[in-house]
Amino acid sequence: MSVPLPNSVKLIEVGPREGFQFEGIGAPDKILLSDKIALIDALAGTGLKTIQIVSFVHPRIMPQMADAAEICAGIQPREDVAFTGIYLNDVGLNRALATPALTFIPEIVLAASETFAMRNQKRNFAEDDAMQVKMAGLCAEAGRPVTAGNIMAAFGCNYEGVVPRDRVLRMIGRLCEIAESTGGKLASINLADTMGWADPGQITAMVEAVGQDFPQLEIGLHLHDTRGMAIANVYAALQAGVRRFDTGIGGLGGCPFAGHAGAAGNVATEEVVFLCHKLGIPTGVDLPALMDCARLAQRMVGHALPSRLLTSGISPAGVPAS
Amino acid sequence: MSVPLPNSVKLIEVGPREGFQFEGIGAPDKILLSDKIALIDALAGTGLKTIQIVSFVHPRIMPQMADAAEICAGIQPREDVAFTGIYLNDVGLNRALATPALTFIPEIVLAASETFAMRNQKRNFAEDDAMQVKMAGLCAEAGRPVTAGNIMAAFGCNYEGVVPRDRVLRMIGRLCEIAESTGGKLASINLADTMGWADPGQITAMVEAVGQDFPQLEIGLHLHDTRGMAIANVYAALQAGVRRFDTGIGGLGGCPFAGHAGAAGNVATEEVVFLCHKLGIPTGVDLPALMDCARLAQRMVGHALPSRLLTSGISPAGVPAS
Repeated sequence: MSVPLPNSVKLIEVGPREGFQFEGIGAPDKILLSDKIALIDALAGTGLKTIQIVSFVHPRIMPQMADAAEICAGIQPREDVAFTGIYLNDVGLNRALATPALTFIPEIVLAASETFAMRNQKRNFAEDDAMQVKMAGLCAEAGRPVTAGNIMAAFGCNYEGVVPRDRVLRMIGRLCEIAESTGGKLASINLADTMGWADPGQITAMVEAVGQDFPQLEIGLHLHDTRGMAIANVYAALQAGVRRFDTGIGGLGGCPFAGHAGAAGNVATEEVVFLCHKLGIPTGVDLPALMDCARLAQRMVGHALPSRLLTSGISPAGVPAS
Repeated sequence: MSVPLPNSVKLIEVGPREGFQFEGIGAPDKILLSDKIALIDALAGTGLKTIQIVSFVHPRIMPQMADAAEICAGIQPREDVAFTGIYLNDVGLNRALATPALTFIPEIVLAASETFAMRNQKRNFAEDDAMQVKMAGLCAEAGRPVTAGNIMAAFGCNYEGVVPRDRVLRMIGRLCEIAESTGGKLASINLADTMGWADPGQITAMVEAVGQDFPQLEIGLHLHDTRGMAIANVYAALQAGVRRFDTGIGGLGGCPFAGHAGAAGNVATEEVVFLCHKLGIPTGVDLPALMDCARLAQRMVGHALPSRLLTSGISPAGVPAS
């Protein structure tokens, strides 16, 4: 009855970008620039290979990201770590391209809920599609044709409820089309449970359906723990062969436009690492060093973060740390 | 790759007993007797069929359970709900037998970590074994020979670290022996991850090993979310065919003698119900009514409970509640 698991996983740390956004709602100066930089530098020393550190959004819409350029300029460059940023329109994309400290990811993104798209991207489905075509063109012009796709709200929506799987599959197909029409080719698709509605059965079914329709795509998952299901969803995804996860240190994160009632963070990086190591799956990450980062993040935001492991610790007795 | 899941599960609500114990550490009067009774009565109206409400421990050791008799006398009796209590020695057992409001469970219990046994049961392995023989005899004398077994700290220990699976299997065998030597017969075994060390791989392996060595036993799991793995462990257990879980409303709970650094509660009842319903597994429990109970429990203890679902809610939009 045991199901084979992947022999390694790749974690994309998104806690800085999401955490700085979410924690800064209504309080853009809550986290000091120097603290932001210190957290990113500390995370870069844990073995994590990709760290998403900023989003390029207009400071009127998201004042807590007004210091994106200073963050990128302040961090310690490292050969072994890719620092990345996200963007949701052509202006943001051009800012990302013009930021030498970042590894540019030529990515296009659709949201599977139109209500969510209207709130987060400020565009309806048609406008959002047109923007992806425009952004894909810009990527091609910059000599970096699109290779990555992303579907937000892929498993359910706080505004619309159920999100049909067929719509998600159609949108993945559309992202493939847009990439190819601009000289690119999708190699990966990230599926985001932006509002924390997925259950492990849904994860299994979605991963199987995407794998069947798009066998050429590497699947990544971006899971929020809004309803307590995230770690079970990671486990189900591992069983389905998924090898790439977005995670947030300490459980930081949450989308400011997702209509969350409260809990909202990403699945905690240290809990995913703990799970993987206990299952015998290497992550390349130093768990005790990661726990130090989680404690740092918690001190910086000034309140308890959602991670249970952060509170309980990894090795009060002889239980191996990793 | 999909694994078949059980067609129903049975949940044992342990939040009152564990929560009243854990929340009352150092503050035995923190939760009003009337509140305790109100919570139990509310839980009894949700469709839960078994609710563990008290432990019979000497009030010197656990002053927060000094009102056990009053709780039992105060609750509304119901034909459709079994209220139960636990005991760890002959004196407690006799108190449980003498409490007509309770459904008596003729159960014997060993701990798989001797250090934990010394702290929780105040007995070493040999003394603890002898006590189980004595208690099994008392059950037989009362005309209720032993049918239930329980292993505490079955998946790891905050004091000792790793708990070998072979030891757990030997102890289950020993519980079977004790039951049979006193005219009983074990029908079920509860495996407790008292200190929250289990991962889904361990759960799968343990359930398979117990099922192989003791096919006659129904397996129940008692899972703490100390390190954030509990809901993934429930999912792994469902995949392995487990149909019985102890859960705590709101994530209440924690063993006062387990050396927890912080987080300690049981897997939250409402999150297990949410998971099961999303997976299409009936629980017989009314999720919105259960959410009301979780809110009541949270008001009563006066601080945020660990349940994520309690914070985020089940249906901000059109997503079905169950």
